[in-house]
Amino acid sequence: MRDTPYLVVDVELLEQNLTDMAAHARRLGVALRPHAKTHKSPEIARRQLAHGAVGLTVATVGEAEVFAAHGVDDLFIAYPVWAVGPRASRLRALAERARVRVGVDSVEGVRLLAASGAAVTVAIEIDSGHARSGVAPAEAAGLARAALDAGLGVDGVFTFPGHSYAPDRRAAAAADEERALRTARDGMLAQGIPCPVVSGGSTPSVEHATPGVLTELRPGVYPLLDAQQWELGSAEPGRIALTARATVVSARGHRVIVDAGNKVLGADRLAFATGFGRLPAHPEARVVALSEHHATIEFPAGTDLPGLGDRLSLAPNHVCSAVNLAELLVAVHSEGREEEWPVAARGANT
Amino acid sequence: MRDTPYLVVDVELLEQNLTDMAAHARRLGVALRPHAKTHKSPEIARRQLAHGAVGLTVATVGEAEVFAAHGVDDLFIAYPVWAVGPRASRLRALAERARVRVGVDSVEGVRLLAASGAAVTVAIEIDSGHARSGVAPAEAAGLARAALDAGLGVDGVFTFPGHSYAPDRRAAAAADEERALRTARDGMLAQGIPCPVVSGGSTPSVEHATPGVLTELRPGVYPLLDAQQWELGSAEPGRIALTARATVVSARGHRVIVDAGNKVLGADRLAFATGFGRLPAHPEARVVALSEHHATIEFPAGTDLPGLGDRLSLAPNHVCSAVNLAELLVAVHSEGREEEWPVAARGANT
Repeated sequence: MRDTPYLVVDVELLEQNLTDMAAHARRLGVALRPHAKTHKSPEIARRQLAHGAVGLTVATVGEAEVFAAHGVDDLFIAYPVWAVGPRASRLRALAERARVRVGVDSVEGVRLLAASGAAVTVAIEIDSGHARSGVAPAEAAGLARAALDAGLGVDGVFTFPGHSYAPDRRAAAAADEERALRTARDGMLAQGIPCPVVSGGSTPSVEHATPGVLTELRPGVYPLLDAQQWELGSAEPGRIALTARATVVSARGHRVIVDAGNKVLGADRLAFATGFGRLPAHPEARVVALSEHHATIEFPAGTDLPGLGDRLSLAPNHVCSAVNLAELLVAVHSEGREEEWPVAARGANT
Repeated sequence: MRDTPYLVVDVELLEQNLTDMAAHARRLGVALRPHAKTHKSPEIARRQLAHGAVGLTVATVGEAEVFAAHGVDDLFIAYPVWAVGPRASRLRALAERARVRVGVDSVEGVRLLAASGAAVTVAIEIDSGHARSGVAPAEAAGLARAALDAGLGVDGVFTFPGHSYAPDRRAAAAADEERALRTARDGMLAQGIPCPVVSGGSTPSVEHATPGVLTELRPGVYPLLDAQQWELGSAEPGRIALTARATVVSARGHRVIVDAGNKVLGADRLAFATGFGRLPAHPEARVVALSEHHATIEFPAGTDLPGLGDRLSLAPNHVCSAVNLAELLVAVHSEGREEEWPVAARGANT
């Protein structure tokens, strides 16, 4: 018996999710380069590569360092890395152990990368509608030219269609992504700049990706899934492979309180979310309040309530946040065997 | 030069905040037992005790274990601890190294504590309006009687007036707290049950506490403060002692993106918050979007914008969440000297 709260990975569901996404990428004829920020786990990375992933995507040099140390030799830091100070030398060392591609969205960022002396290639980040980092599609060729002029190899273009995180915008975000990437690629080709990599993909939008422009997809959440994907309509609740195991410690009326709060689940709550997480085994229940060590779960009147001391499984709203709070994942195999998988890249933010 | 993002503690501001709260408690004639979940730091705990705190409050047995290992000998686990499995024996071992008080809000919880054999005392948790854990004030005496019958010592009663987390409800929550605790205490006294400890207090409500009923206050956030306290009106921005140091990595129009996202700041956002954090040096700016490694900061038209590569300091909305994501705090002394303070109780959720 393990003290709650802790995170559980259902290995059979994980494998189903890995299998399905690998098949989807094959059908589309694109490479799969999963975003490892979701799981931060060398063991899940190993399984993704075994299912045919061409390499990993990460968000930081720190994450890249962890996965490179675990033998991953092809890494894309899909972020406008600001290569100054210790980070510049870290990037140089990293590029000696793995093939490294880095995101850029400014001429200044390109120049710092070139000045760092790190043997990396770059991909131009495009804003396809999420309005975060990234240049407009029409600006891709100019920035690619600046990178080439600075002596950097240019792999191509990428985008994150983060505006797919709304139940009614998944298909539209996929269409935006494709249009933006096509414009960016065609702009480069028109100037005689090769663009072999056209990289997109988020877990909510990837189902709507079509063959043609994309050469690579970078979904992150799909191996584990979460309450957000359930409520977005991009995951069946029965496919959620990561849950927090928690104990009912207090009860009143139609509400129970369990000991997994936002220091376990994370505090993420997008506008469409019906609560602060969901219970796959109790779709009728809602997590109506969340504090650091309390999740308040409301059950409809007339339903059976869990009792004090019962253990419940909660899907976090956003699995990436929950995993990043944990030191380890308790992996449960179908035959009941348990393993502890370290969250080796937890907190690797720099 | 340190790679961003990282958390900084301004030691001079920390000391001012510690001094002021200690003076406030002295004026009220109550003991101060700060909630250490905020900082999880033995060094900040040491400073709180040096300022006269009678002991610490923690949320979990795991936090208590960390602080006991660092020499803190008087600990209140202000949570309805469910003492089963390994936790029962951990609690026994803990109570051999420190005086330990534990929260209870059910007869079942009391019985498990008694059965654990741990040499702890209990305090009855009262719901004073937050509608989380805790019994109604009128039920305190009955639960205290059950604890005594089970052979446990009863220190008194406590509550967390968490409904103080709204700008216009701080004073009302303090009044609710006092009323609920008075009713609970008087109910115990009427049945001949001593109630020496009457414990309340949250950072937003503590300013409104009055002498009389309370014997102990347990604010947590006050040493470091955060954007929530600023926007609640319970902290001046110039007193916020913890910020995330981050680099501008992307810019467009009146928005810049820095490299501290919700994996550094936490995703907390209460209804009254104007964004996902604030910049004490730029009160005019708003953090309008936050993803895992991007904070999007909007500046009003006509103001000077930070440039690419500039470093900015962001106060998280909720400091407890931000600290729990970090391995260490970079403590900066007034003369410029830097120290690294470990977040020793990070992730101690069980």
